[in-house]
Amino acid sequence: MNINMIHAAAARLKGHVRRTPLLSSPFLDDIAGRQVWIKAECLQHTGSFKYRGGYSAISALSEEKRKLGVLAFSSGNHAQGIALAARQHGVPAAVIMPNDAPDIKIENTKALGAEVIGYDRDREDRDEIGRSLAQERGLCLIQPYDEPEVIAGQGSAGLEIAEQAKELGIEKADVIVCCGGGGLTSGIALALAEHAPKMSAFPAEPDGFDDVARSLAAGYHVSNKLSSGSICDAIVTPTPGKLTFPILKGHCTKGFAVTEKEVLKAMAHAFLRLKLVIEPGGAVALATALFRSEEISGDTVIVVASGGNVDHNIFARALNMLQAA
Amino acid sequence: MNINMIHAAAARLKGHVRRTPLLSSPFLDDIAGRQVWIKAECLQHTGSFKYRGGYSAISALSEEKRKLGVLAFSSGNHAQGIALAARQHGVPAAVIMPNDAPDIKIENTKALGAEVIGYDRDREDRDEIGRSLAQERGLCLIQPYDEPEVIAGQGSAGLEIAEQAKELGIEKADVIVCCGGGGLTSGIALALAEHAPKMSAFPAEPDGFDDVARSLAAGYHVSNKLSSGSICDAIVTPTPGKLTFPILKGHCTKGFAVTEKEVLKAMAHAFLRLKLVIEPGGAVALATALFRSEEISGDTVIVVASGGNVDHNIFARALNMLQAA
Repeated sequence: MNINMIHAAAARLKGHVRRTPLLSSPFLDDIAGRQVWIKAECLQHTGSFKYRGGYSAISALSEEKRKLGVLAFSSGNHAQGIALAARQHGVPAAVIMPNDAPDIKIENTKALGAEVIGYDRDREDRDEIGRSLAQERGLCLIQPYDEPEVIAGQGSAGLEIAEQAKELGIEKADVIVCCGGGGLTSGIALALAEHAPKMSAFPAEPDGFDDVARSLAAGYHVSNKLSSGSICDAIVTPTPGKLTFPILKGHCTKGFAVTEKEVLKAMAHAFLRLKLVIEPGGAVALATALFRSEEISGDTVIVVASGGNVDHNIFARALNMLQAA
Repeated sequence: MNINMIHAAAARLKGHVRRTPLLSSPFLDDIAGRQVWIKAECLQHTGSFKYRGGYSAISALSEEKRKLGVLAFSSGNHAQGIALAARQHGVPAAVIMPNDAPDIKIENTKALGAEVIGYDRDREDRDEIGRSLAQERGLCLIQPYDEPEVIAGQGSAGLEIAEQAKELGIEKADVIVCCGGGGLTSGIALALAEHAPKMSAFPAEPDGFDDVARSLAAGYHVSNKLSSGSICDAIVTPTPGKLTFPILKGHCTKGFAVTEKEVLKAMAHAFLRLKLVIEPGGAVALATALFRSEEISGDTVIVVASGGNVDHNIFARALNMLQAA
């Protein structure tokens, strides 16, 4: 895993991926007490950054391997990224999704042409289901984060952040990234280390599912007690990835964790001030910037709004935060 | 009013205005039965295209005139555009707003540093209030659409559409624009006539407030019966502008009108598929593309999502459309 792989992934993604905008609002700066920039990856194809890694991984396969098809397990965003990228390459995709994944993510994955196979998040082992299906059909399993070409694809978002910050005259910033298994955070950390060495990457997670923050503090893999029950479904993972954790340890000094209420409030502010729809798991970084300012040291913060695939009833809960205010 | 003024406005706006993205979704293409591209002006500074015209007009004033301050009347989006542009130029702004304008627009205009003066939309004459205030304080009145430098600023969105379409290999398209007084539509029409001559601009309005469509059909100025009562508050105007109508007549063969239900459904689809927050008045063009496909002839449609300043209770009504579906 190195910067050259990120450059190669970005080259393959060119003409396909959206260069999502880096937005800001004076109202958000006021709340945060510093300059806040938002990398709007919710505007990426399929509504999340996961399209980057999915396209990168599928485009990196040999034609022979690729034509047999690909397999993924995902709570929904990786599923949609894989589904669209497979369709664009003209190859079949099967996706193993937890039964409690948001409806919109399951429906969209199907609508993008993938076969969806459901499983029980608490009682079944998705890795086991995946392995047997891959063997049976000759499908190539594309891991959601512990896969070098996926990390490389997510890293292309880091290259864009470095470029866009340079265009805005920003040299130094804390870059806060919504973190599940760590694919996006580690890809961005590697890209910044090379192209924006004065920027530092930090993972952000929901309270109670902050395995990466606690693992960084401990220096070794720590697991979450629960495997479900967060509104931040997109970034709930049991423990940091095998490939991603060493990268995170090398580049991130600490991680942040925010409450569910802070997440919903951040979504409401994104609605009000940025005109963006952000899903709970995609709002933890913005929530950190807005409501944990005493834990941040830099004058400028760049947060990744990593996805926008939220069911309308949860979004309505976020809007209710404005009623209360 | 000519293309050179639009080029000059774009040059003044450079480094200030956002080049908003041109987005798409396979799900929206399916509904519309053709390719649909969305120019996301809701992501513009202050949440609408109006910042373009506001900045253009203030930056075009002589320094002597400008330092006395500016005055605007607006239901909210022009107000915010003027307020931010005035603040960026370091000059005072006073804005005359109807008492029934959405709270978010009134609050934001104040928060951006402008003085807000309320009036009764049905009983008072905003032009009269504006004229006397301008005289009293020496303020320069900046009309919301019947002002060449405002039209020129809005036209910069048309230059971007022409550029972005070229980048995507789109040569021919129907460009549908949310239309109130016609500043944005006429600015875009002029820009396209010069830089994308195979594209045609069309205004879109809410049913019952389709003065521009009916005026185009009649060939002369026709007025709306009502002056308020639409959820599309941003684009409710009594009759086409004096400056804008001749431009519209020269470039637009017809206009579209959509129902309130179609507008709310279009907002729901923008939430679901684009991760964009669009206000009712900013959704009439998308609603036309999605639900009036039999009235459209081109294979490719570009719609302008002109603003995103919507109160959360109205947005919740749009989300309820998804519940029903």
